[in-house]
Amino acid sequence: MTEEAFDVMVVGSCMTDLVSQAPRLPKAGETLHGHKFFIGFGGKGANQCIQAAKLGAKTTMVCKVGKDSFGDNYIQNFQKNGVQTAFVGQTSEAATGVASIIVNDAGENAIVIVAGANMLLGAEELQRAVPAFRRSKVLVCQLEVSPQTSLQALRMAQDNNVKTIFNPAPAIPDMDEGFYRASDVFCCNEPEAELLTGCPVTNVSEAERASEELLKRGCGSVIITLGPQGCVVLQGQGNTSTHVPNTKVNAVDTTGAGDSFIGALAFYMAHYPTMHLEEMARRANQVAGVSVQSAGTQASYPSRKELPAELF
Amino acid sequence: MTEEAFDVMVVGSCMTDLVSQAPRLPKAGETLHGHKFFIGFGGKGANQCIQAAKLGAKTTMVCKVGKDSFGDNYIQNFQKNGVQTAFVGQTSEAATGVASIIVNDAGENAIVIVAGANMLLGAEELQRAVPAFRRSKVLVCQLEVSPQTSLQALRMAQDNNVKTIFNPAPAIPDMDEGFYRASDVFCCNEPEAELLTGCPVTNVSEAERASEELLKRGCGSVIITLGPQGCVVLQGQGNTSTHVPNTKVNAVDTTGAGDSFIGALAFYMAHYPTMHLEEMARRANQVAGVSVQSAGTQASYPSRKELPAELF
Repeated sequence: MTEEAFDVMVVGSCMTDLVSQAPRLPKAGETLHGHKFFIGFGGKGANQCIQAAKLGAKTTMVCKVGKDSFGDNYIQNFQKNGVQTAFVGQTSEAATGVASIIVNDAGENAIVIVAGANMLLGAEELQRAVPAFRRSKVLVCQLEVSPQTSLQALRMAQDNNVKTIFNPAPAIPDMDEGFYRASDVFCCNEPEAELLTGCPVTNVSEAERASEELLKRGCGSVIITLGPQGCVVLQGQGNTSTHVPNTKVNAVDTTGAGDSFIGALAFYMAHYPTMHLEEMARRANQVAGVSVQSAGTQASYPSRKELPAELF
Repeated sequence: MTEEAFDVMVVGSCMTDLVSQAPRLPKAGETLHGHKFFIGFGGKGANQCIQAAKLGAKTTMVCKVGKDSFGDNYIQNFQKNGVQTAFVGQTSEAATGVASIIVNDAGENAIVIVAGANMLLGAEELQRAVPAFRRSKVLVCQLEVSPQTSLQALRMAQDNNVKTIFNPAPAIPDMDEGFYRASDVFCCNEPEAELLTGCPVTNVSEAERASEELLKRGCGSVIITLGPQGCVVLQGQGNTSTHVPNTKVNAVDTTGAGDSFIGALAFYMAHYPTMHLEEMARRANQVAGVSVQSAGTQASYPSRKELPAELF
């Protein structure tokens, strides 16, 4: 059997977003009437995979969903977006991960995540995906599945000369130091950098200092994303960090923008392996900048044909 | 075509309960990890109908769900419980009603209801259900659909000599006075009685006074439920109210207990039309008392074979 080759492989989470819009957030013991409800596809792993696929990367997702309608629907969503689903497992031991999201009229979110099936993704599923590890260009991991699973996946990728992008989100205070050494590109946002370094990261110069601190811990390169201010990129030891600014856009909904950036970065690393990391980050900024200009998470992610030709 | 006859007809709401259990309730801007998620069948109208059906009543439900998987699942749930679904409409103009429920470790709920398709239940659907109005013994209504729809249904029932039970839940402060005159039995709980009368209702004697006040407004009889203390029943003008106490039980989950009481009451009114209302209330107390001894809403409702024979 000829093994399929992939540009981007993601080992990570799938979540069904259950979004209620209400005038305000309810207090304990309170029942409020909201004005809208919708179901969306989310989870950092899946989001990043879908963005890479929409840009034209050949992608495969290694994840676990429940043997339930949310799980069935998620698999259909991957297929609709051209993501290969041979390594998407379904279990009857846990429900598909869900995020119950209440959005108030000020646009603030209160979120309860029940990771469910995501936490059952483990060594067995990684073993089954070995053929994909052997024939992928880039692996992307986050922290919405068990940290051991993410770390093992990153190491398996390095053993197979697959480039790794690690997104330590959501950040955990006592993260295994092995994650740094297993990351070719370590990519986080401001609060994550803050939690990991213990220093404030609120502007470009603080992000530059944090990137130097994170690089020292053993990763190949560091990117810290700064929302509307773009990002800071530090490539390899002995270099100085570069601020890559972002074009100003009219943000409508920033949900999932960080995942759009990482999915785009993975696409560029796979398709243009000799491109400078700063240039990849500049282009990924632009992709994420398009995603914030319309509502929704994956629904707002631009596809290749919706983007200017100079990004390819 | 021979028209089907029904013991109990419910015009009311269906809601899909999306329940997340988390250590505490999230604040604005916060993402918390919960430990369990499950989907349940809820909505006061549907709950009451299912309880009546489980006791052996021949039931029909007049309601509206979305043309979506939650709506499909709800129709299956009715059918599984023997509820006739000829008057369950499906619309593509709104989603099935949902209640996003976050339960903290202290057992407190924070709920956001998005009524969706429930609010589209109106005159057209009632018109289609005229054959059922002509051949039902008891109609039950609440306030989780538009109040005009509930009031119209109650009046159509009275025009057809169908006995009416009205449950003004959730209570609305400026409720149309027509609801009282359209109610053969007006059945509410303590906070609802308080909101409607403007007087505190925290114990039996206050509930007795409130029942007298509500009766004056034109209803046939009044029942005010008092949770573990049972209920107060006031039948017809010139009578005095009776306290019907409840047997003490070990409550595990009181969600939907009020709906269990009303569904049971509807069953007794349909099956034993000459029984005293106090006796019906005493038996309905016992049914609801069983429902609080296990977890879940409709899942905790006892069926006829799970109850002592003396209740029938």
